Amino acid sequence: MKDLFPTVTTGPLPASRRVWHRGAFHADIRVPMRAIDVHPTAGELPVTVYDSSGPYTDPQAEIAIERGLPRLREAWIAARGDTEQYDGRHVKPADNGFAEGKRLVPEFPVRHEPKRAKNGRAVTQMAYARAGVVTPEMEFVAIRENLGRQAARQAMERDGEAFGAEIPDFITPEFVRDEVAKGRAIIPANINHPELEPMAIGRNFLVKINANIGNSAVTSSMAEEVEKMVWAIRWGADTVMDLSTGRNIHNIRDWIIRNAPVPIGTVPLYQALEKVGGIAEDLTWEVFRDTLIEQAEQGVDYFTIHAGVRLHMIPMTVNRVTGIVSRGGSIMAKWCLHHHRESFLYEHFDEICDIARAYDVSFSLGDGLRPGSIADANDEAQFAELVTLGELTQIAWAKDCQVMIEGPGHVPMHKIKANMDKQLATCGEAPFYTLGPLTTDIAPGYDHITSGIGAAMIGWFGTAMLCYVTPKEHLGLPDRDDVKTGVITYKIAAHAADLAKGHPAARIRDDALSRARFEFRWEDQFNLSLDPETARSMHDETLPKEAHKVAHFCSMCGPKFCSMRISHDIRAEAQKEGMEKMAEKFRDGGDLYVPLEDAK
Amino acid sequence: MKDLFPTVTTGPLPASRRVWHRGAFHADIRVPMRAIDVHPTAGELPVTVYDSSGPYTDPQAEIAIERGLPRLREAWIAARGDTEQYDGRHVKPADNGFAEGKRLVPEFPVRHEPKRAKNGRAVTQMAYARAGVVTPEMEFVAIRENLGRQAARQAMERDGEAFGAEIPDFITPEFVRDEVAKGRAIIPANINHPELEPMAIGRNFLVKINANIGNSAVTSSMAEEVEKMVWAIRWGADTVMDLSTGRNIHNIRDWIIRNAPVPIGTVPLYQALEKVGGIAEDLTWEVFRDTLIEQAEQGVDYFTIHAGVRLHMIPMTVNRVTGIVSRGGSIMAKWCLHHHRESFLYEHFDEICDIARAYDVSFSLGDGLRPGSIADANDEAQFAELVTLGELTQIAWAKDCQVMIEGPGHVPMHKIKANMDKQLATCGEAPFYTLGPLTTDIAPGYDHITSGIGAAMIGWFGTAMLCYVTPKEHLGLPDRDDVKTGVITYKIAAHAADLAKGHPAARIRDDALSRARFEFRWEDQFNLSLDPETARSMHDETLPKEAHKVAHFCSMCGPKFCSMRISHDIRAEAQKEGMEKMAEKFRDGGDLYVPLEDAK
Repeated sequence: MKDLFPTVTTGPLPASRRVWHRGAFHADIRVPMRAIDVHPTAGELPVTVYDSSGPYTDPQAEIAIERGLPRLREAWIAARGDTEQYDGRHVKPADNGFAEGKRLVPEFPVRHEPKRAKNGRAVTQMAYARAGVVTPEMEFVAIRENLGRQAARQAMERDGEAFGAEIPDFITPEFVRDEVAKGRAIIPANINHPELEPMAIGRNFLVKINANIGNSAVTSSMAEEVEKMVWAIRWGADTVMDLSTGRNIHNIRDWIIRNAPVPIGTVPLYQALEKVGGIAEDLTWEVFRDTLIEQAEQGVDYFTIHAGVRLHMIPMTVNRVTGIVSRGGSIMAKWCLHHHRESFLYEHFDEICDIARAYDVSFSLGDGLRPGSIADANDEAQFAELVTLGELTQIAWAKDCQVMIEGPGHVPMHKIKANMDKQLATCGEAPFYTLGPLTTDIAPGYDHITSGIGAAMIGWFGTAMLCYVTPKEHLGLPDRDDVKTGVITYKIAAHAADLAKGHPAARIRDDALSRARFEFRWEDQFNLSLDPETARSMHDETLPKEAHKVAHFCSMCGPKFCSMRISHDIRAEAQKEGMEKMAEKFRDGGDLYVPLEDAK
Repeated sequence: MKDLFPTVTTGPLPASRRVWHRGAFHADIRVPMRAIDVHPTAGELPVTVYDSSGPYTDPQAEIAIERGLPRLREAWIAARGDTEQYDGRHVKPADNGFAEGKRLVPEFPVRHEPKRAKNGRAVTQMAYARAGVVTPEMEFVAIRENLGRQAARQAMERDGEAFGAEIPDFITPEFVRDEVAKGRAIIPANINHPELEPMAIGRNFLVKINANIGNSAVTSSMAEEVEKMVWAIRWGADTVMDLSTGRNIHNIRDWIIRNAPVPIGTVPLYQALEKVGGIAEDLTWEVFRDTLIEQAEQGVDYFTIHAGVRLHMIPMTVNRVTGIVSRGGSIMAKWCLHHHRESFLYEHFDEICDIARAYDVSFSLGDGLRPGSIADANDEAQFAELVTLGELTQIAWAKDCQVMIEGPGHVPMHKIKANMDKQLATCGEAPFYTLGPLTTDIAPGYDHITSGIGAAMIGWFGTAMLCYVTPKEHLGLPDRDDVKTGVITYKIAAHAADLAKGHPAARIRDDALSRARFEFRWEDQFNLSLDPETARSMHDETLPKEAHKVAHFCSMCGPKFCSMRISHDIRAEAQKEGMEKMAEKFRDGGDLYVPLEDAK
């Protein structure tokens, strides 16, 4: 049987173990982290890093994608007693784009029985938070965010510029509850996605990254998409958006969610559009509503909803260099224009909230009018929509729904901070979730880099989650290599942002890696890096022998010119003489000190 | 004969022509630029971009590296009448690391007869600038920096935050002269490098990038290094540093300079160290001085001089996480410590200036104590050295020598701006030339990206030239692919900085590419990009047919979901109705406008 199903990438990263921290309030929770061991000569503790990879990197876990992952939240959800199992919606041929026979991706073998809130209650993390309840999800998040930093020996140095973010020295479950209650953080966690390892998105937590996957009408398959998801989280994606647009959307999504330890986001509009044959004008509230319920029952954790695109904003986009570049935004604009009325998303936003609160689907309020070029950045259309997104946030919050706000796009560096500032002011500090932004338009093929620059900066300024951009952006659908490059680039951006914000645990890994570098522990240097395989293979291109892994030089400079090696000599020599004495002597400017004037 | 010598990459980039602009003051100068043609349907002028590639991209040019490039500055230099030809220093076996027989790289076939200043005169661009002389080099630079923007049809919009930089709408030769006279810009242009196409490095000019090449004791050859130089400038390197450290340093450098249309920089200390068998303590002023003259006669345009490393600073580095990471810095620190005295570079800086002014070798004052890790950023050692570099700048300026200042290194984002501000204040606005900085230590294999983020930011803040970092940084010697990746990444950083500073011509290319993107002119989109080959090949991976080059979609979203395509529909519909009327109607909130309250 097993051979019928595709396999995915499993196994630990080099020198890494999946370790667990137990809950205190909720004794049954076990929070995974990754411990990276360093060479015994270092005399250092393992470095604990955030681990979004799920059971796939755990050699003890038995992975079979036809069974799906363990349902670790099932008991937590049941214990709250506010949900009920029900029959759920029946899958229709349109859900899979009328794919048939061999072209139809098979259903996921284990049927998921959907749950929903009893009697119109809100079963959202925000509702619990506001009621003063610290859920297991919140404690899970608190432990996870701390990165085991209690164990780190070094004194914590708070050094950064956080632009108003308030990251505490230690994250407590109560802090998480408070942030969620205030709407400053979300924990995307659909009650129908019990396989999820909870995580938080908020300005006072580690900066997160999202990876997009999904087939298009032109290319790709189920096996590829599941593997892309597993692959993306292996390298550090915190959430994954399934942006599929072709056939088989429903069934592929089932396979993805049942195997996803991270939140899965979607743009329900894409599937709704497939159901009406791709004709934007034919979209209706009924088709859209049905799609929301379909996806909520499957377990989608957050929905991008482009309800901010309003009729009066469309003329503002007409003289843009690149018009409307958001797929969802352009679809809704077309619908609005054709029907000459506000969109069904906007008109029915209240009802959309009612659905979201019954399953705890978080909102990612889409920036349908984001700029698609440097020329269009920070324009009237973009900021008009942002104001509407702020209004919608209040409506969602009134219904206890969790909300984050999507942001641009293409923005030159000097206009990035204004985006963050306006978002905070306009949207009541709801988390910001940006795509890049790209800081120039002239480098297709390298847009992970043009956007990594902007992402690092906006992350520093306060963006809670960064949506990755791959090298294929603007050119084609990313493959496996592109996904990895995009994820690593965005881990760099997110981490650079954490460092600059002064996150109390961020520098531990930098310092450990730099010590390894200075002490010529090559293996540790590889293992502590974001991509050990690439670091190792680049090193080995010129110095492949095992002996070179302990060599006190590399091929860059060769042995004679290795500054690190010379630094060690200096340190040794200095220690011989006694550094204090030496420093004093130099400061006094004794015999050894030749002032500039005398030297001439 | 020709087959005996290696060949290099030649030929134009796609849709590109090398075009020339004539001088006004100096009628014999012809300034090269690259004109990128767009499809006739666009109805747009070609886009003119800065071109550092030299004759190699000109199909009319006959390239033979055994002959070297045309000596376009020879007549300009001769016309000044302040230099004399002389016998010059004889090449010694030590200059090539005692390489012999087959291991000896042959001498460059055409002997270059060195020139030097007559009677101790200063023959530097700074000396001329201060005397009020607008040299052909200055006019060349002025025309080059304008990017043919007089011809650009669009009204110039000045939109940016320049942090005190003052980039004029148009660059005049007089402006260049004034900037050079003030020390705010340099034109590295050794009188023994007449093949050079002059360029400027300064905060009020386009941000430049440098690519490092050079063999090491472990690997690489002459043919490879010449090709790396040609390859680096093909993709946009503005200057190239030859950091060779193995044998054959002298002869390889000859081949590079005679074929280089860009300034060549070196760290003379590396060769001097080779001459004393790699023993730092054995270095002497005499060996170093001889090396300076050797390289000045060959035509090196700028020297990195680590004269800022002083004895009393060494103790400041001992408790660093990564000690001293500059090769030159560590060598000098070791020397100082061993001899218990200030370095010969510091003591003899005056004499070094005398050599530099006799050939117009610019200084790149090395930051020997730059931080090599996030932990060490902006520390006492680093800033103590910067103060000394400021003092040395004044000494060099007193001798009419051109100076730029090297900067870090590894710096988290929140500490980058302080580097720029301190450098400007301490070094009298001499141009800043930074390596990155890397914004995190945890991504070996991706340090072009960790540093591209920092480079874009510090470029925006005012750094005049960015020294590239390749993916191999910390791991090995870059190959051809790494060089290209490093150069493209840094072109992105430099351009993003120009945009953010509000450079009046920077956005022309972004806008042209974005219009091409919006109008589905795929060929134009590729051709206008920094790396047309990569953009095209990524697109063609999924949609290889020629027909797809005019398709109104790509494989990312497929035809139904193409926002750009839908935007065109919207624009068409809007134009039908009359945009003004439509906008007015929406603003008035007529029948079509459904307020939020009514919608519920």
